[in-house]
Amino acid sequence: MTAQRVDPDAFVELGETRRRIVDAAVEAFADRGFHATTTRDIALAAGLSPAGLYVHYASKAAVLGEVSRRGHEAALRLVQTALADDAPGSCAERLRGCVETFTSWHARHHTVARVVQYELGALDGDDRAAVASTRRAIERLVEAEVRRGVGSGELAVDDPHAATRAVLSLCIDVARWYDPRGRESPDDVAALYGRLVLRMLGAATGARATTEDT
Amino acid sequence: MTAQRVDPDAFVELGETRRRIVDAAVEAFADRGFHATTTRDIALAAGLSPAGLYVHYASKAAVLGEVSRRGHEAALRLVQTALADDAPGSCAERLRGCVETFTSWHARHHTVARVVQYELGALDGDDRAAVASTRRAIERLVEAEVRRGVGSGELAVDDPHAATRAVLSLCIDVARWYDPRGRESPDDVAALYGRLVLRMLGAATGARATTEDT
Repeated sequence: MTAQRVDPDAFVELGETRRRIVDAAVEAFADRGFHATTTRDIALAAGLSPAGLYVHYASKAAVLGEVSRRGHEAALRLVQTALADDAPGSCAERLRGCVETFTSWHARHHTVARVVQYELGALDGDDRAAVASTRRAIERLVEAEVRRGVGSGELAVDDPHAATRAVLSLCIDVARWYDPRGRESPDDVAALYGRLVLRMLGAATGARATTEDT
Repeated sequence: MTAQRVDPDAFVELGETRRRIVDAAVEAFADRGFHATTTRDIALAAGLSPAGLYVHYASKAAVLGEVSRRGHEAALRLVQTALADDAPGSCAERLRGCVETFTSWHARHHTVARVVQYELGALDGDDRAAVASTRRAIERLVEAEVRRGVGSGELAVDDPHAATRAVLSLCIDVARWYDPRGRESPDDVAALYGRLVLRMLGAATGARATTEDT
């Protein structure tokens, strides 16, 4: 088990003990799934007694909720930063930057991202609602930028909603297949995906004319 | 639990009892994961005693192996048919057809596809090797077609291997997010993805010039 399993930026304010619990839970959920993991498994792997864990979290679902909420919030912050009102660049450039940072995050944090994606169904009601709200916020920000690009003629997309969902799906699925032992770094995948997405969105710079761009 | 959970074409030769076992297993694995499902759970849901299940499968891992091997083989057959030597059309048209059928399959069979994707790590050695081999066969067929298209000038892709992986990833991830209660049919998603993938691959018909194409 390593601390690198989880995004340090997303979990930094948790404090040392909660951070150990979250690390142990991510490892266990990734190895054998949420349902086959017990609170006791997590406590022992974090160097605590079961009672010691309950001081911090009421249940293993609460730990999963912490992981999922913070993981989603970290992804949202990346998108917010890339597409902020004062972020420079054309719509295409901003979207490329957004896709690159979102893709790179899913490659680097593929273990926590897999847990977050695969175990959505195991979340408690409040956590599920919070995560769904964060996912919608990500989709809305990206879709709004796609619509702006279509409006200005930079992009050519008939259904911005469906195209946005496809773009985010492509980036998120990196967490499923990315293997850090492979030849490509997270930044390599991110750069490729930035180019592929501009093509998907019909950006002038992503079109066939500029083949050196892909 | 419904028989529609699994692709009828992929499981038709199994016989009635094995088919019931596979249906029950897919339902249970999808609901609570492989590790939290017992052989007894599967047997009872299939209307059998645990001993009755062992007549057909040595373990729950053997049932998962059956589901994963047949699921992957069904997907491979779709790709083989779309890209067969005697299949008509240009490389771009053949790839569009391939992406459409592959995408539609992952939408229609999203439950079994999720189990197959999420539980790869739980497969026994022989099943894992068989599934890995089928996955490589799918990737090789698609990549060869992409290379042919690049060679003939129909497509414009610098790294056919990485682009092929991105294309298949986009299609496979449909199983994660597809919701049959949503407004889009599997064929709607398939048609959109056929167009998006031609753009990703720099096909002349997928480029910005023909905006009515997206």
